[in-house]
Amino acid sequence: MASSRQLRLGAFMRPVSIHTAAWRYPGAFPDANFNFAHLKRFAQTLERGRFDAFFMADHLAVLNMPMDALKRSATVTSFDPATLLPALAVVTEHLGLIATGSTTFDVPYHLARRFASLDHLSGGRAGWNIVTTSNPDAALNFGLEEHVEHDERYTRAREFFDVVTGLWDSWADDAFIRDVESGIYFDPEKMHVLNHKGPNYSVRGPLNVARPVQGWPVIVQAGASEAGKQLAAETAEVVFAGTGSLADGQRLYADIKGRMRKLGRDPDHLKILPGCFVVVGDSAEEARRKRLHLDSLVHYDSAIASLSIALGTDASKFDPDGPLPEIPETNASKSGRERAIALARRENLTVRQLAQRLGGFSGTAMVGTPAMIADQMEEWLFSNGSDGFNVMFPYLPEGLDDFVDRVVPELQRRGLLRREYEGRTLRENLGLPRPENRFFPKQPDHLAQRDVA
Amino acid sequence: MASSRQLRLGAFMRPVSIHTAAWRYPGAFPDANFNFAHLKRFAQTLERGRFDAFFMADHLAVLNMPMDALKRSATVTSFDPATLLPALAVVTEHLGLIATGSTTFDVPYHLARRFASLDHLSGGRAGWNIVTTSNPDAALNFGLEEHVEHDERYTRAREFFDVVTGLWDSWADDAFIRDVESGIYFDPEKMHVLNHKGPNYSVRGPLNVARPVQGWPVIVQAGASEAGKQLAAETAEVVFAGTGSLADGQRLYADIKGRMRKLGRDPDHLKILPGCFVVVGDSAEEARRKRLHLDSLVHYDSAIASLSIALGTDASKFDPDGPLPEIPETNASKSGRERAIALARRENLTVRQLAQRLGGFSGTAMVGTPAMIADQMEEWLFSNGSDGFNVMFPYLPEGLDDFVDRVVPELQRRGLLRREYEGRTLRENLGLPRPENRFFPKQPDHLAQRDVA
Repeated sequence: MASSRQLRLGAFMRPVSIHTAAWRYPGAFPDANFNFAHLKRFAQTLERGRFDAFFMADHLAVLNMPMDALKRSATVTSFDPATLLPALAVVTEHLGLIATGSTTFDVPYHLARRFASLDHLSGGRAGWNIVTTSNPDAALNFGLEEHVEHDERYTRAREFFDVVTGLWDSWADDAFIRDVESGIYFDPEKMHVLNHKGPNYSVRGPLNVARPVQGWPVIVQAGASEAGKQLAAETAEVVFAGTGSLADGQRLYADIKGRMRKLGRDPDHLKILPGCFVVVGDSAEEARRKRLHLDSLVHYDSAIASLSIALGTDASKFDPDGPLPEIPETNASKSGRERAIALARRENLTVRQLAQRLGGFSGTAMVGTPAMIADQMEEWLFSNGSDGFNVMFPYLPEGLDDFVDRVVPELQRRGLLRREYEGRTLRENLGLPRPENRFFPKQPDHLAQRDVA
Repeated sequence: MASSRQLRLGAFMRPVSIHTAAWRYPGAFPDANFNFAHLKRFAQTLERGRFDAFFMADHLAVLNMPMDALKRSATVTSFDPATLLPALAVVTEHLGLIATGSTTFDVPYHLARRFASLDHLSGGRAGWNIVTTSNPDAALNFGLEEHVEHDERYTRAREFFDVVTGLWDSWADDAFIRDVESGIYFDPEKMHVLNHKGPNYSVRGPLNVARPVQGWPVIVQAGASEAGKQLAAETAEVVFAGTGSLADGQRLYADIKGRMRKLGRDPDHLKILPGCFVVVGDSAEEARRKRLHLDSLVHYDSAIASLSIALGTDASKFDPDGPLPEIPETNASKSGRERAIALARRENLTVRQLAQRLGGFSGTAMVGTPAMIADQMEEWLFSNGSDGFNVMFPYLPEGLDDFVDRVVPELQRRGLLRREYEGRTLRENLGLPRPENRFFPKQPDHLAQRDVA
């Protein structure tokens, strides 16, 4: 079976669920953010479900939200991904380990070392999610009063990427001879001093870590702006797309893969994985009830504030348990208002339910039986909507167990998901080529043979 | 038995031995720098030997030495300590995990997060070795043409320390309520915004990691200069002292503990651990032979260059296998020349052996039977030369196994080393107090009781 027709699955773990109320759901582990035993269980379950990767997003500040909402958030503190992922590497064998690393507030030499070390430690399972950080609260934690402007952030990001990948290429793959007899540890001809001097960075090198097992850790991105899509087409190997409709997915897919063709890159060498919130039930009705129960755990006061902003009108005056009344046109964002109204009408939600949906998670969701979810995933895959998904679990551990124990077997039965990992590294499992070392290109085979002869 | 009369033992693992030729010793693992299976075995052996901590020094550049020596060095590349230690936390239960973090080239918010995360992940076993980085090659990897001056580095280091510990105090120990019923995750009264604005750093906070299990990771330092000793007396809880004679050790011990008394700190709250290279044999003669064999694996050409520099004269013209001739006075450093000459006379070394000693490791060493080594450690401990040692193994795994299987039982028999770990955290094992949170001081007991009544 052609592996290009199989789903690639990431698991979005920030740190355990994107849904605001997940920590209150029956059976949840409210302390999972800082409880390694729980995170180990999650990672091992993902591996049993043959996921490609555990993806940990990151923030460089306490989230910027009003205290009344913040104090209800389980994601206010969590492990640094760069600390958690090496620990997870020890308790897994195949799962990819992708962490966010900021080109705005991190330092190229440090970042290159860290991801190269994770790649060695995990036997070639590291991925770097390149982000430019736009959180002004983060800027204040790094001594910057003014936040870096959007275009400037992307210019820096591109140079940052060139420096980091250049540092990863500091050593030829076969530089380390370790010849006990002669006492030569490495071949000096196979070490490259980068000597990068650019507008934003000046970095000499070489990196004090051997070339990563994968050549480079897998390059991941999530940018949706023009600059972000162009950077992805030039450099990314996985794109974590935002949520939206299948038509939105198809547009993004065609856009990014089209840019790649123009650049001469093989479109198969980049996998597009939209975020997807999955709620599994024995029946469509049970799945819907589970989601409503989860949403009902979102605090109403903060939820109604979100709804008021979306609608551009004070929603607290509405009957919480009645249907959404007609909303007049206002100056508020038209798309936000229309999306909220359409959602309420489509799912027949009360004002309270609508508010709690917006305050919980309201992006792309697949809610239903394993067969219904597999149908939708199959449709996205075969209509060029995506190459797979970055799955978001509504609550843990139940939502993850449901996916792995019930949706995964259905996907495997249909031939849409691997039964065993294909390779040893994240690149091999994703079907991505290993980057050549720009300073030590492989000799063509006939030349290499001539040397031997 | 009073725990203050017991040795504290760190293991200096950079990454596996400080001796240049260790990777060539029979039975060594030449690839141990990047082989997690080996590092796991070492850490578990240290834990079996009831060591306090695994200490991983760090460099922020490929070592600055001539290529002819560099190409023979096993330490040219290794894991980033911040990546290795979380992985070791998973495979150990009691061992402290200490990594170097540079105040010259790191960023306070990143560093505070990383060590706080390691402390949570390991259940309270993290330590931060505060260093100011003086390697000009490192500066070039971080975009600095001019290296930061010595005094400036210490002024920055002190402010960096204040910021990092302030960030660790962002949350009261009991801030995270996680009340599923009410939906309140943390008490907003128990979050502190640091708002640090100093000459070198501007950092708002709060840290997005809960207060570390230990309050703060254990604070470690190694500075030997005036500024370094003063910073240690003010802030450190463990000092990794350089190597030297017992008299040197006693002077440093009296100096630092005297400074602490002047500052009103309890001298027991800082443990001084000189580096100590230990070679174990069945007899003194066997231990000496092992060391000579190890030294003989140091490459002669690079070794003789080191000897020439130490003596201030071209040593390559001497008979390598004869005794060291008389050396005239020169402009070279007098102490270096005298130390080399005294070493050659004391141990009756040939020119080659002397050169290879200097090129391998020539600091404080204990070379002999388990009883001889225990005698020396006991003497240092009971004559206020140190509170223990930061042990350097000459070669791995044999040197480590010898220490744990042979020296440790002898120390335990004499009551000089624990048989079981006393506590759960590195602080508890070292006998260090848990720092109070400066922003959320504990109420005195009588006030706390009145609140309850």
